Amino acid sequence: MGNKDIGMVGLGRMGANMARRLHLKGMKVIAYNRHTEKATELAKETGMHAASSLEALVQALPTPRVLWLMLPAGEATQSHIDSILPLLSRNDILINGANAFYEDSIAQSQKVEAVGVHYIDAGVSGGIWGLREGYALMVGGSPEAVAEVTPFLEALAPAVDKGWLHCGPVGSGHFVKMVHNGIEYGMMQALAEGFAILQGKTEFGLDLAKVAEMWRYGSVVRSWLLDLTADTLAKDQVLADIAPIVADSGEGLWTAQTALALKIPAPVITLALQMRWASQGRDDYAAKLLAMMRNEFGGHAVQKEA
Amino acid sequence: MGNKDIGMVGLGRMGANMARRLHLKGMKVIAYNRHTEKATELAKETGMHAASSLEALVQALPTPRVLWLMLPAGEATQSHIDSILPLLSRNDILINGANAFYEDSIAQSQKVEAVGVHYIDAGVSGGIWGLREGYALMVGGSPEAVAEVTPFLEALAPAVDKGWLHCGPVGSGHFVKMVHNGIEYGMMQALAEGFAILQGKTEFGLDLAKVAEMWRYGSVVRSWLLDLTADTLAKDQVLADIAPIVADSGEGLWTAQTALALKIPAPVITLALQMRWASQGRDDYAAKLLAMMRNEFGGHAVQKEA
Amino acid sequence: MGNKDIGMVGLGRMGANMARRLHLKGMKVIAYNRHTEKATELAKETGMHAASSLEALVQALPTPRVLWLMLPAGEATQSHIDSILPLLSRNDILINGANAFYEDSIAQSQKVEAVGVHYIDAGVSGGIWGLREGYALMVGGSPEAVAEVTPFLEALAPAVDKGWLHCGPVGSGHFVKMVHNGIEYGMMQALAEGFAILQGKTEFGLDLAKVAEMWRYGSVVRSWLLDLTADTLAKDQVLADIAPIVADSGEGLWTAQTALALKIPAPVITLALQMRWASQGRDDYAAKLLAMMRNEFGGHAVQKEA
Amino acid sequence: MGNKDIGMVGLGRMGANMARRLHLKGMKVIAYNRHTEKATELAKETGMHAASSLEALVQALPTPRVLWLMLPAGEATQSHIDSILPLLSRNDILINGANAFYEDSIAQSQKVEAVGVHYIDAGVSGGIWGLREGYALMVGGSPEAVAEVTPFLEALAPAVDKGWLHCGPVGSGHFVKMVHNGIEYGMMQALAEGFAILQGKTEFGLDLAKVAEMWRYGSVVRSWLLDLTADTLAKDQVLADIAPIVADSGEGLWTAQTALALKIPAPVITLALQMRWASQGRDDYAAKLLAMMRNEFGGHAVQKEA
Repeated sequence: MGNKDIGMVGLGRMGANMARRLHLKGMKVIAYNRHTEKATELAKETGMHAASSLEALVQALPTPRVLWLMLPAGEATQSHIDSILPLLSRNDILINGANAFYEDSIAQSQKVEAVGVHYIDAGVSGGIWGLREGYALMVGGSPEAVAEVTPFLEALAPAVDKGWLHCGPVGSGHFVKMVHNGIEYGMMQALAEGFAILQGKTEFGLDLAKVAEMWRYGSVVRSWLLDLTADTLAKDQVLADIAPIVADSGEGLWTAQTALALKIPAPVITLALQMRWASQGRDDYAAKLLAMMRNEFGGHAVQKEA
Repeated sequence: MGNKDIGMVGLGRMGANMARRLHLKGMKVIAYNRHTEKATELAKETGMHAASSLEALVQALPTPRVLWLMLPAGEATQSHIDSILPLLSRNDILINGANAFYEDSIAQSQKVEAVGVHYIDAGVSGGIWGLREGYALMVGGSPEAVAEVTPFLEALAPAVDKGWLHCGPVGSGHFVKMVHNGIEYGMMQALAEGFAILQGKTEFGLDLAKVAEMWRYGSVVRSWLLDLTADTLAKDQVLADIAPIVADSGEGLWTAQTALALKIPAPVITLALQMRWASQGRDDYAAKLLAMMRNEFGGHAVQKEA
Repeated sequence: MGNKDIGMVGLGRMGANMARRLHLKGMKVIAYNRHTEKATELAKETGMHAASSLEALVQALPTPRVLWLMLPAGEATQSHIDSILPLLSRNDILINGANAFYEDSIAQSQKVEAVGVHYIDAGVSGGIWGLREGYALMVGGSPEAVAEVTPFLEALAPAVDKGWLHCGPVGSGHFVKMVHNGIEYGMMQALAEGFAILQGKTEFGLDLAKVAEMWRYGSVVRSWLLDLTADTLAKDQVLADIAPIVADSGEGLWTAQTALALKIPAPVITLALQMRWASQGRDDYAAKLLAMMRNEFGGHAVQKEA
Repeated sequence: MGNKDIGMVGLGRMGANMARRLHLKGMKVIAYNRHTEKATELAKETGMHAASSLEALVQALPTPRVLWLMLPAGEATQSHIDSILPLLSRNDILINGANAFYEDSIAQSQKVEAVGVHYIDAGVSGGIWGLREGYALMVGGSPEAVAEVTPFLEALAPAVDKGWLHCGPVGSGHFVKMVHNGIEYGMMQALAEGFAILQGKTEFGLDLAKVAEMWRYGSVVRSWLLDLTADTLAKDQVLADIAPIVADSGEGLWTAQTALALKIPAPVITLALQMRWASQGRDDYAAKLLAMMRNEFGGHAVQKEA
């Protein structure tokens, strides 16, 4: 049965661990990275093969070739596709595993499929935990192409029949991943607000680490995000050294934009994003202007920048 | 060792199942309900004892007595306390397991403790699933009283050492339960918004039940609320017959009020509550006025009530 | 001095009143409408000229011609531009007064300016009140083109030197108008929420019409939107016959989208839009799913669709 | 006709200007301030009388006496009432002009009216501009008491018949003022967000001061708050020296709390308050926890406090 050979292009935190998991599950992984020492080291660590160039990678794979790109979305992914595409044969398969905006993936797929190469967009969730627990995989593409890569999806997923889904046509994988991350923004914000309320009620002297740990069992809010919250609070619940600045990648923004485009209210997801932006100082001009308006009508004092 | 006798007062959905779980775990439960047939039926089903009156209940329990009230918050709980209190002895223990506002519980405790009876507020999470999976228990009260009832907490919880916590003094149990439910509002809204976006993207023909099921494994949003969402979507993902009206109990409101009182921003939790209210038509006057304003300045047509 | 001849294309509510105001201020207006009877009637009413075709309109105007398009944004505007453009000469001026998305206007301008015709985007505020009070005008275009049409701007505006602004290059007029409308969404929602709170406090028996009228003088919230609110409440403050459904045109959406694109938090403007969508039933699927989740975990009853 | 004598208690920014306006309108004002030099100076400036003690103030007024308290809400107001009340006679009138929570005013009134003194709660809007433009006045109290003080209301208001309202019974004046300020929070936030979007669109090189000035005429968003915004932007539109911190007094909080208590969604007003709190760093703990959660699941870097 089936294809076991796969090229993994891009060996960052995600790509390297996915290569490791595929290798552990018996797949024949050839690892490639632009800085080749990463591939060499991974090969030494695991026993998998490393390719010193895209050409070498392509030549080492049997046809139809399966190549999984695990690169930053946008230019990095596109430039690798531009380099690989001329080396491929009809019916080879390119899987884009980046956190890309689904409309970009659809546009990207059209150029790839125009030369007879199959394109699959795969949203990958699991972060640094995926190696051990498996990755949730949301896949878009033609039934034929997805059937061809199913052994790899089964190996990466938490179980052969769990945690991966052929969602629909090209684009649907990154679409479902995008919404997944949007939900994540909202759930995280809800958890953070709740713990902030607990923390603010100083007279009860609550041990937030114990509360989080307790909620992990039997409660309505038990969740993987709560598990992580419990982990972090167990180490430090004062957070004195942590700057109150929350970064955002593109996924929350794309979810908010998509909800607007579909005219579907997503106020909590959108607001979770906006609160992150506020934490980054992106509402500073509005706040300054509000302070000045108060000064204009009420003579209220305004703080000066230090 | 220790006390195994407990009176369960109030045999609604929650109380009856908690009595069943305590009984299954080897506790000696005496069941009481205002409509006594509920107690009789539960006794027949399980073999536990039923008390035909509060007096009979109190007399059947060894001292110090442990009584768990599982009644609607407010008048129902208070009137039972008023009836039971004169029957109790010093050092007996009343546990209020209702979804009560923590400030009300503190006020209530003062009258109970004034006559030498211990008061414990216990937030109970788990709904209709608690019988099988155990209940998350958030408990407030004196160390002595909580130590006395620990066997019952260990029996009700998902495991002897998991899913229950002595949070702090009286009131802290219901406080932590309140915040738990506030987080629940936010997480639910985030999930609902996400699935609404998926549902609105009709061109992908997504199977929402399969997406929910897939996310249960390996994804960042895996959670018990997602498990339930997967259950409900597996049965029906069109929801044609369901009215778009979301009820709210008091807990979300209390969380929002507490966040305001503590001056801690909880925008997502608060908004999740407000969106439920909007679904109940509680923003109808504002919407009517907005429609009329648009008509005033732009001559825009206004829809008339059918 | 200066050009006084102008062609007004599109005689809907806005265009007809703008033609009237230009005529009253001494401009030589030639009115054109696809359904020519509207132009004929307006000519009969006012004494201005009517053109029976775009060709006639163009021939009747001295060069450089000034044409103000007051048509629905999108296809209607574009198809008129496509018809007029071949008839025009180098240095003629097309003003697009529609509520168009500024990026569309920039794209549109490039085709127009490619053949040597100047393009001006003009955001027009004032609704049905503009005829009497003058229109706020937000104009984008080259300094030369804007200088050429300044007499018309001065005539349309509330005063020669008030209520109109050359904001910047092409696109900036519609951009400023878009943000203006976004602010309008937020202000309207704030007013509506406030009056809803007043209306909900039944024990004070407040006369909302009198409150609105009183606030018009000396208060911090005095504003034209409050004036309109006072007008509507003076006629009917019960609003029993009005459906609680608030329409939205594109401007609020574009503002929300632009804020996301610029990564600037605009939570209140965005939420004002989302509340309108909720009033339109666009959050029904989310609400249905929330009701079902509550049913799953708590056995809470769900209302069925009537 | 009618009473012209009034005692003004409290000569801060608001009280002193209100005393000036009453004096200019022909009322016989006796000024009192705890630090008596403020009263002496105001008397010297205007020619009105100053009282050196509350006793002197009370003795100098004909009965029924009218006393307007213009003090900080809470303790300052209450302690003055406690001092004055024993000095007053039946049917004298106390007007509380503070920004007080209406439920507190109702409670306060009951003690005052218990000794036969009338109580009026008066919400006063107008800030530092009221002296020249008049104050909006929202008054709660009995018809008899309000009739007695009408000459003073007519003098303080922008016009005899404009900008003041007897809203209803005691409490309704401060209630209407509270909602007024809640609306103000929402309108201000909408304006600030809009200008922040304009400011963020750097490629148009917009002059924000000119945009604000232009919108003052003919636009839908013209309003007093916009007038103030135009004033402040005319002086400085970069706001480099202003700290992005927006203070809040109690009124926005009370409005949000009242909306929750009435179960009326006021999402925009509530969010405007929460954004101010965020600007004050009140969401720092939530932001820190979010940063740590991201670190837990994705290994994302966390910024340390400087």
